[in-house]
Amino acid sequence: MVTLTLDSTFSALSDPTRRAILARLALGETSVKELAKPFAMSLPAVSKHLKILERAGLIARGREAQWRPCRIAPRALKDVDDWLQHYRRFFDESFDRLDDYLKKLQAKQPGTENKDDEHDGDK
Amino acid sequence: MVTLTLDSTFSALSDPTRRAILARLALGETSVKELAKPFAMSLPAVSKHLKILERAGLIARGREAQWRPCRIAPRALKDVDDWLQHYRRFFDESFDRLDDYLKKLQAKQPGTENKDDEHDGDK
Repeated sequence: MVTLTLDSTFSALSDPTRRAILARLALGETSVKELAKPFAMSLPAVSKHLKILERAGLIARGREAQWRPCRIAPRALKDVDDWLQHYRRFFDESFDRLDDYLKKLQAKQPGTENKDDEHDGDK
Repeated sequence: MVTLTLDSTFSALSDPTRRAILARLALGETSVKELAKPFAMSLPAVSKHLKILERAGLIARGREAQWRPCRIAPRALKDVDDWLQHYRRFFDESFDRLDDYLKKLQAKQPGTENKDDEHDGDK
C-alpha cells in the first residue's frame, strides 16, 4: 500500500506543471480558476493535473464552498520525507552540524563545565 | 535545468523496483549480477532500470573494476530534499519536537534554572 502511494506520489511530482501548482498552493489555498491563470492552460487541463495530485495525496479540495478551494495535503509529502530519511546520510551535512551544536549546548550544562575555570582566580 | 533533473529523478523514483534497487545499494555498492538476484529479473531488465537511475543522478557506476560496481549518488537525492524543504512546514512535527528539546537543554543551563528548587528543603 505504501509502495502504491509512493508510486503515484513520485509519478505526480515528475511533472513540472504539477510541481508549479504545488508551489502556488504553498502560498495559500485557492480556486482552480486562480490556479489556471499563470499557466495559460484550459480549466479542464488544470483539473486533470489537480486530479492526479489529489489521487496521489498531495492536495485536498474543500467541499465547504462552491469554488472548492485546493490546498496542500501533508500526508504524501510526509511519506516522501520518510522514504528520503533512509538515504539522508548519503547527502546531508546538516546532521553533522546539528550534532556539533547539541554537543556545544551540552558542554555548557552544569557538571560538564570545564572545572579549570574555578582555579583561574588563584593565579 | 533543475526542473529537468527533478522530472527525471521523480520519474525514476516512481517505480518500486528502482526504489528496491536503491534500498539494496544503501547497504553498500554491488554488481549488477548481485543486484539482479533478489528480483528474479534478467540482467538486461535490471540494466535498464540502472540506466534510468543513473541518468536521473540517483546512482553512479564505477569504472575502476570490470564488474562496474553500482552505488548511491547523493546529488539527485539532495535535490529532492531541497525541493521538499519548501513544504516541510506542512507536514513536519519534528521541527517542533527539536525546538522543545533545545528549550529543555537550555533550561538546564546555569542562570536559567528554577530557583524555587533551593527552597524545597525549608518545608
